[in-house]
Order: sequence, then C-alpha cells, then structure tokens
Amino acid sequence: MKQVLVPFSEGVEEVEMLSVVDLLRRAELDVTTATPDGLPARGRSRVEITPDAALDNMLGRDWDAIVLPGGLPNAHTLRDHAGLAGALRGAFEAGKLVAAICAAPVALARAGVLKGRRITSYPGCEEDIRAEEPEIAAYLEEPVVADGNVITSRGPGTAIPFALAIIRHLLGEEASEKVRREIVFGG
Amino acid sequence: MKQVLVPFSEGVEEVEMLSVVDLLRRAELDVTTATPDGLPARGRSRVEITPDAALDNMLGRDWDAIVLPGGLPNAHTLRDHAGLAGALRGAFEAGKLVAAICAAPVALARAGVLKGRRITSYPGCEEDIRAEEPEIAAYLEEPVVADGNVITSRGPGTAIPFALAIIRHLLGEEASEKVRREIVFGG
Repeated sequence: MKQVLVPFSEGVEEVEMLSVVDLLRRAELDVTTATPDGLPARGRSRVEITPDAALDNMLGRDWDAIVLPGGLPNAHTLRDHAGLAGALRGAFEAGKLVAAICAAPVALARAGVLKGRRITSYPGCEEDIRAEEPEIAAYLEEPVVADGNVITSRGPGTAIPFALAIIRHLLGEEASEKVRREIVFGG
Repeated sequence: MKQVLVPFSEGVEEVEMLSVVDLLRRAELDVTTATPDGLPARGRSRVEITPDAALDNMLGRDWDAIVLPGGLPNAHTLRDHAGLAGALRGAFEAGKLVAAICAAPVALARAGVLKGRRITSYPGCEEDIRAEEPEIAAYLEEPVVADGNVITSRGPGTAIPFALAIIRHLLGEEASEKVRREIVFGG
C-alpha cells in the first residue's frame, strides 16, 4: 500500500485538505495527516481538525507522495518548516510525488523542486513562487498541472480534480476513475 | 447575519460537511456545527472534526437554514434523532431552508418535509427515501435539485454546487458567484 503524507497547520484550507485525504483513502492509499506539534489545528474557516501524527516524527520515512494543502498561514508555515523542505527535496530526488494546491506551491518552490517545471497555484500567488524559484518553466492558469512527479493546483474549487490527479499518478487511471464515479463527480 | 445549523456525527462525509461550512463562512453566513454529544466525531474517511456545539442545545433556536451532510452512519444517526426531525419540520413550516446531500435526504424524508417535492440523493438511496416518504414529486439524477425551501444533492463530487446553491437561496446570486470565483470553481 502506497504511503502518502499530508502535512497541515493553522489556517489550512479545509476543503483542499479533506478532498485529498478523503479521495486518497477511498482509493486505498495509506494517508497520514500531520501537524507540526501533533495537536489539532484550526482551518481558515475555523474548523478544528485532529491530525494522525506529529510532523517531525514522520519526516524520516520514505513517502510515496507528500501533498500540501493550502490556506494561510498554513502554506507559509509549511514553506518555513526546514524539516519538511528537506523531506520534500528527498522525496522529489527519489522520483516520488510532491504536490501542492492553492498558496502551498510556494513551499515546493522554497524546497527547490520547481526548477524547470510547469506549475499553477491560487491566483495571485505566482509572484511569491517566482521570488523563491525564478526558473519555473511556465505558470499555467489550469485547474491542475501535472509535470512529471510534480502536481500543482489552484484552490478549493479544483481540489477534487487535484486529488484525482494524485490518485492517477500513484495508482493509474482506473483507480482514479473508480473514485470519480463513487463520489459522483463530473460527467 | 443569517444563522445556519450543520449537524453531524460519526461517519460524516468530510468533503460534504467541510464544503458546506467553508463556502457558507466565506459568504459570511453564521454557521454552527453540532454533534449529538458536542464531542468531536470521526468522518467516513477517519478524520476527526471538532464541533462548535452540542446538538440538543441548538435545537430551540430559529435557524435560517439546517443543512445535513451525508456519509454513514451519520445520515442514519441524523434521521433517527427525534429532536432534529422536529427542528427540521419547524424550520420547513416557517419557510426556512432545509437541505441535505448524499445519504442524508432520508433524514428530511423522516422529518416529513419532502412530500410533493422534487429531490435527489446519493445513487442507490432513492428506495430508502421513498420508504420514508412515498409522495415525493420526482427523483432526479441531477447534481443539485432546488425546489422551494428544499435543496438536495448527490455526493462529495457535488458538494460545492450544493453549497453554492444554499448561498444563492439565502443571499442571492451575487454572493454565490463571489464565492464561486474566490474558490476557483467552474467556468
């Protein structure tokens, strides 16, 4: 069973986080959610969510994917977490998936995994991302941008296609399509 | 500020619940989440969510809307809660909005508010709903069905259109469209 880490913290965008956790668990991926201190965190819409683990205890493992939900200040907390940046770089260099949505691609930029990649993010975050990584290949205004082992997306309204793209990358089109039908999404 | 009650319990579908809470709070509706005992509840994808209040303490108030997320056993727990059924009927008879998604329309049926209404639900739940309320006007396979002060929807993949329809009913098209753009949803 493939292992996926979903770090989050105060201000996380609830729909982005839960769409990823819910859909990936429906696909029978082994998802672990983690906050920096292992305590519950309150999202941008003030809903308190309990994590599975403390982030520091999770960073030494070999993850098949690390997926960052957005929301502020969550995306900046994740960006500034040196241990997480190291884990993202390690996963990326081992060919594992790194993914981020909304404001969180800036954390991938800080970790140094966006050089030469096509990406997207929440509208208005492009400048912050380019400040961290001037050499992205292209910034696209598409709901989801998959470029090799980097997947990025735009906001709560694109969180389901983002999660389905992650499932497609890890398990293939059939697994993604099965979840899409199960949740009654799209045509 | 309009007041919206979102009851939930063990097995709640996380995306359905959080899409409603997140989008309605973005629209500046006053949303209160409540579990039967006031304690955190674990969703169908095993994410623990902390409520704002205990349901029994919330049922005497005048709500502008009561919105039921799905997931099992949550939908059946809500269906079997006599106090909630009374609050749903009271709200409905006062012309307030009652809404449910996924497996939860069966709780509206039990509360007696679906007679003569066009509705939808999660695929496969139609029979359970008709067993509670034989006289629905029509069962439609559409993402969201709004019929007067009753709104129903199908599953996690239709939760955002469901939440936007609730905002449209309570605050109008402009407020709904503002949130739609803010979350980067649709065209």
